Amino acid sequence: MEHNIDLSRYAIRTDLALEAHELVQEQQSASDVMPGVRIETDDSERGIKVTRLQVETEEAGRTIGKLPGHYITIEVPKLRDNDTAVEEQVARRFTKEFAAFLERLGITEDKKALVVGLGNWNVTPDALGPMVVENLLVTRHLFTLAPESVEEGYREVSALSPGVLGITGIETSEIVFGVVEKSKPDFVICIDALASRALHRVNTTIQISDTGIHPGSGVGNKRKAIDKQTLGVPVIAIGVPTVVFASTIVNDAITYLLGHFGQSMKESSRAFNKLAMSSLPERKEPYTEEDLPDMESRKTFMGLVGSLPEQEKQQLIHEVLRPLGQDLVVTPKEVDDFIEGVANVIATGLNRALHRAVDGQNSAAYTH
Amino acid sequence: MEHNIDLSRYAIRTDLALEAHELVQEQQSASDVMPGVRIETDDSERGIKVTRLQVETEEAGRTIGKLPGHYITIEVPKLRDNDTAVEEQVARRFTKEFAAFLERLGITEDKKALVVGLGNWNVTPDALGPMVVENLLVTRHLFTLAPESVEEGYREVSALSPGVLGITGIETSEIVFGVVEKSKPDFVICIDALASRALHRVNTTIQISDTGIHPGSGVGNKRKAIDKQTLGVPVIAIGVPTVVFASTIVNDAITYLLGHFGQSMKESSRAFNKLAMSSLPERKEPYTEEDLPDMESRKTFMGLVGSLPEQEKQQLIHEVLRPLGQDLVVTPKEVDDFIEGVANVIATGLNRALHRAVDGQNSAAYTH
Amino acid sequence: MEHNIDLSRYAIRTDLALEAHELVQEQQSASDVMPGVRIETDDSERGIKVTRLQVETEEAGRTIGKLPGHYITIEVPKLRDNDTAVEEQVARRFTKEFAAFLERLGITEDKKALVVGLGNWNVTPDALGPMVVENLLVTRHLFTLAPESVEEGYREVSALSPGVLGITGIETSEIVFGVVEKSKPDFVICIDALASRALHRVNTTIQISDTGIHPGSGVGNKRKAIDKQTLGVPVIAIGVPTVVFASTIVNDAITYLLGHFGQSMKESSRAFNKLAMSSLPERKEPYTEEDLPDMESRKTFMGLVGSLPEQEKQQLIHEVLRPLGQDLVVTPKEVDDFIEGVANVIATGLNRALHRAVDGQNSAAYTH
Amino acid sequence: MEHNIDLSRYAIRTDLALEAHELVQEQQSASDVMPGVRIETDDSERGIKVTRLQVETEEAGRTIGKLPGHYITIEVPKLRDNDTAVEEQVARRFTKEFAAFLERLGITEDKKALVVGLGNWNVTPDALGPMVVENLLVTRHLFTLAPESVEEGYREVSALSPGVLGITGIETSEIVFGVVEKSKPDFVICIDALASRALHRVNTTIQISDTGIHPGSGVGNKRKAIDKQTLGVPVIAIGVPTVVFASTIVNDAITYLLGHFGQSMKESSRAFNKLAMSSLPERKEPYTEEDLPDMESRKTFMGLVGSLPEQEKQQLIHEVLRPLGQDLVVTPKEVDDFIEGVANVIATGLNRALHRAVDGQNSAAYTH
Repeated sequence: MEHNIDLSRYAIRTDLALEAHELVQEQQSASDVMPGVRIETDDSERGIKVTRLQVETEEAGRTIGKLPGHYITIEVPKLRDNDTAVEEQVARRFTKEFAAFLERLGITEDKKALVVGLGNWNVTPDALGPMVVENLLVTRHLFTLAPESVEEGYREVSALSPGVLGITGIETSEIVFGVVEKSKPDFVICIDALASRALHRVNTTIQISDTGIHPGSGVGNKRKAIDKQTLGVPVIAIGVPTVVFASTIVNDAITYLLGHFGQSMKESSRAFNKLAMSSLPERKEPYTEEDLPDMESRKTFMGLVGSLPEQEKQQLIHEVLRPLGQDLVVTPKEVDDFIEGVANVIATGLNRALHRAVDGQNSAAYTH
Repeated sequence: MEHNIDLSRYAIRTDLALEAHELVQEQQSASDVMPGVRIETDDSERGIKVTRLQVETEEAGRTIGKLPGHYITIEVPKLRDNDTAVEEQVARRFTKEFAAFLERLGITEDKKALVVGLGNWNVTPDALGPMVVENLLVTRHLFTLAPESVEEGYREVSALSPGVLGITGIETSEIVFGVVEKSKPDFVICIDALASRALHRVNTTIQISDTGIHPGSGVGNKRKAIDKQTLGVPVIAIGVPTVVFASTIVNDAITYLLGHFGQSMKESSRAFNKLAMSSLPERKEPYTEEDLPDMESRKTFMGLVGSLPEQEKQQLIHEVLRPLGQDLVVTPKEVDDFIEGVANVIATGLNRALHRAVDGQNSAAYTH
Repeated sequence: MEHNIDLSRYAIRTDLALEAHELVQEQQSASDVMPGVRIETDDSERGIKVTRLQVETEEAGRTIGKLPGHYITIEVPKLRDNDTAVEEQVARRFTKEFAAFLERLGITEDKKALVVGLGNWNVTPDALGPMVVENLLVTRHLFTLAPESVEEGYREVSALSPGVLGITGIETSEIVFGVVEKSKPDFVICIDALASRALHRVNTTIQISDTGIHPGSGVGNKRKAIDKQTLGVPVIAIGVPTVVFASTIVNDAITYLLGHFGQSMKESSRAFNKLAMSSLPERKEPYTEEDLPDMESRKTFMGLVGSLPEQEKQQLIHEVLRPLGQDLVVTPKEVDDFIEGVANVIATGLNRALHRAVDGQNSAAYTH
Repeated sequence: MEHNIDLSRYAIRTDLALEAHELVQEQQSASDVMPGVRIETDDSERGIKVTRLQVETEEAGRTIGKLPGHYITIEVPKLRDNDTAVEEQVARRFTKEFAAFLERLGITEDKKALVVGLGNWNVTPDALGPMVVENLLVTRHLFTLAPESVEEGYREVSALSPGVLGITGIETSEIVFGVVEKSKPDFVICIDALASRALHRVNTTIQISDTGIHPGSGVGNKRKAIDKQTLGVPVIAIGVPTVVFASTIVNDAITYLLGHFGQSMKESSRAFNKLAMSSLPERKEPYTEEDLPDMESRKTFMGLVGSLPEQEKQQLIHEVLRPLGQDLVVTPKEVDDFIEGVANVIATGLNRALHRAVDGQNSAAYTH
């Protein structure tokens, strides 16, 4: 979670493909799915909504700012309640979705995994990756040192929490490359904390994707990417939004407000026109809006509040945020509990999905 | 920091007397200090602004929602930079202000202190009190067990982190009462994390007051208060805002936006009138705004966006927040570092202000 | 765990009644149970040995240095393996033993409990009490604030981690008294880390007793005791040995060595006598050992190594330990994991034994 | 700190070259320095003893079980008192010694360092390396991303805490190799917790060496070594003893005891002989010890206790330890504070020695 803020777009920053797509829909006032994007929603399980989104073309990817590939989003509003029954339910569903994801990628049971816990363990909302790694069932050393002792149903799994640039002085991707070269996994799973545009999605949503990790994506620093192209093996990214840009909250508030005023404006506009027409000298045939003079000034006036152009809106948000600090990132007060809960869900799910021999009965034994 | 949310006012929730006063000024569109409130600002020291606010009457207290008494606010925007030089500067200033505060209350060097670290050590933004207590120079047991070994210049100090209701099942105030009865301090200092209305004040502001701790104040649960009346000895409260209600951010955004539109409205209003007048049948003497028909509808229209009544504004905020969760409380992502830094400042300051023998040379020895 | 070291006896320091009794047996070279002490052993469950020891008389109590009362010891060597199946098994057994203990004391389901976690949370081997408290199901506030919401099968439980003298400056017992007076529980449960004389018992043994907590017991500082006499309600103490005095390890080594030499000595003694007799002038009837001259010097010589008097042995240990530091207390390197595991066992067991509605299915929900 | 226990020698396990040398001297009853070893002691500074030991030959290395190279040992008994003045004094001395060490190795100011914090952050006595890394002033990313912003007097420093085999499933050395290949430092500094043979040396001694890290050294697993040969750049190891094998404590006790008895034996032997001689038939010329019969049995008898052969001694220790657990490793109860203190000393010292611009005035700013 190292955020390179693109000032021109910062107010709508999100790491979730689902939100990015929604956002473009909103901005284009389109309710249809974009061309080049396929979406499938599954809410068959009570309290859990799973969305499978596929970005099929480069162009669609550019439009929503996400790379072509598969994105699964598991949304569970109740995940926030720190209820162990809900956590167990989500762990089960995550296991199922993740196992299917591996299968679709052709990753069979004999493939060796390296799980990378990205993020800074000293910053609670950024500690998700390292916390998942702490609770993983790691087996690679057993396969290496005492292969005869490894029972049926276990996969070769290794794990690493490389730290962040400010702690190590080394690009995380360089550390991962080095370790991949030496330990030679068949695929890599990266866990990272994400930024969402919606406060209500913090710690209630898990995203799985096959596009890898691309810090500051779009900005062109290819060398930092952790993906199939750079590592030579498939990279699956698992992310959970744990923070929101304060600017997003402000943006949402303003968007809502403008929508609210927009509605009023339509009514006011009609009232204005009626007023203006009633002020015109009487004549036989009734005036229409076409007859109103000085159309330009009226439009300008409407524009002021009715439908602010995107650029002006950004400028406005920029001004509102000035006293706040432009790039302030916030997290819910209860972040410690949230992170612990969701890290447990993911670790439990990974342990079950990666090792056939681990199931609901014994998986608690490996997590804290 | 146990927040009882008063829905009718939640958008302006603050634990800082300074903000509460500002807020009332804003709402009353008054720029003068309220009657019954005295304010004195001292920004003689570069980068530090100290405000001394005194609520002199019960009535003024009711109006701003704070009890009569003295409130000192130390504001240091740079406190957020995790710069040890700034932290040392603030610790020095805090020492000076706190020592003067003790002196004004007539608390001499021989008076015994009990420092109470309120809050939940498992919730980072609420862990300020316990973290300060961990770094205090505690001496009461030396005075009791080996008085001859205590050197000149030390005060009898004890300390306690009682935990929160959800951890102990016991009202914090009951625990404090019990311990005060047994350990018989001459005065009590309570440290607590606060809620502010402004994100930029989180971890940059320290409030000292002589009014004690009043959770859910105004709601009338007197038995929970920790103050001179309930404990029988003076209670000094030290607080630092560490969280903000998300609703406050939205409120600030909307307030700013309405101000922005209000300004546009004045201009638009003139444009509208000019337009309307130009639409009227020509006549010799120029039209004035008085001549415009249907004034009521024009006013209504202006009212729509110009100056929303407080009640409607709250309703609007309520609606904006619905998807967010009404009572979401947020904290900056960097909360771990912030809390550690400011807890260190307060512990260092208290150690120096409480013990004459502790100064800038040796105070670091007692904190981590 | 605040150890007042009695230098004359430090080498045999133990907080376990079971060990204290064994020790006296050893020193008296007696294999029988002491008069005034009743012991009953139950090893019906594989891997778990439960000993019920009752000190019936004041005199027996003085002899073994433990107060009259009931002591249950649960010994599980495998508890050290960090095996969750073993931990669950021990939690079940602890629940059963503790429930029976409550029943024998006449403490029914409607009695209100206060659980006190003694010890210093900053010192890992001393953090057992606070860690148990963190994982307790606390309900008192629900009974107080929303009694109608409390379901059948829950007891009123509150909890407190008062800290240690060095952190608070206040005797732990004073804090507990104050809180008991305000919160009025019907009985108190104290959790504390203990010192054992045997390294192998560290983190493998749990002691339950009804005699309360008596720091530096025997030394006569009655005011520090936390027991029925001082609090006015029954006090149950739960303890787990987490440290050993280094002197005890040395003592054990020396005791073993002396035993080893003692055996050799008997044989050597015979050899010596044979040698001595063979050196005597020949005569008709064979010499017996009675005929040997200078018996005193021989005895002295034997005494040198054979059976060192207790006082000399202590002196020897004292000298061996001089370079080590006399009062060094050690703990196994893996202390972090050990404490976490056993704290979990006790918290789970207490939650089940205190609340009828909590059982093996849902108890994991309350611990971390 | 992954201990491969060599049963035949376990009782004298030590990672300190100084102790290994002493031990060989003791076993050989030699008071002279061994051939191939040069030792120089400097106790010019009150309270600090610095020993510079050089193993000059392969043969000497084999004898003491340490590789040829330079070993500096800084011994400060008071380091255990948690006294910040002492810690600052040791940090100053460490800075000086480490800077001289770099100079002797020809490592100039422009050489890039990678600091590796070995050990397990979840095991307090093994967390030294990771704790030092947390407090380092890391600059490599500044040199890479914004070289113009780096002021005069700073070196390019990166840092890594790779974790241990049980957490990652990957040999630590493999991770370090991978990262060295990618980040290309000019030299590597490894920090590790060590085992000492003496409890009094735990957390009072710092060893610096240029021989790298060799887990289970001597056993021949070259691939695990982290040294100049395997990495291609100089490797400096910094270690602090934080644990002791319980067997070592027992060994020391027994050694002392045997020494004690040995002394008694000499006296007893004379008494015995006198006795035996007095038992012989009178004759003119006085008997000498030569005249005593059955010398063999007497010698055997003496041997029983007087000077146990090394092998028998080991066997004895083995038996004493059976109930303890053969490979139990212990640490002082106060390990949390100790590790924090000494990690702070080393981090402060490294920050000063690695960056000319960091001195006593500002170095505290980088550590916690």
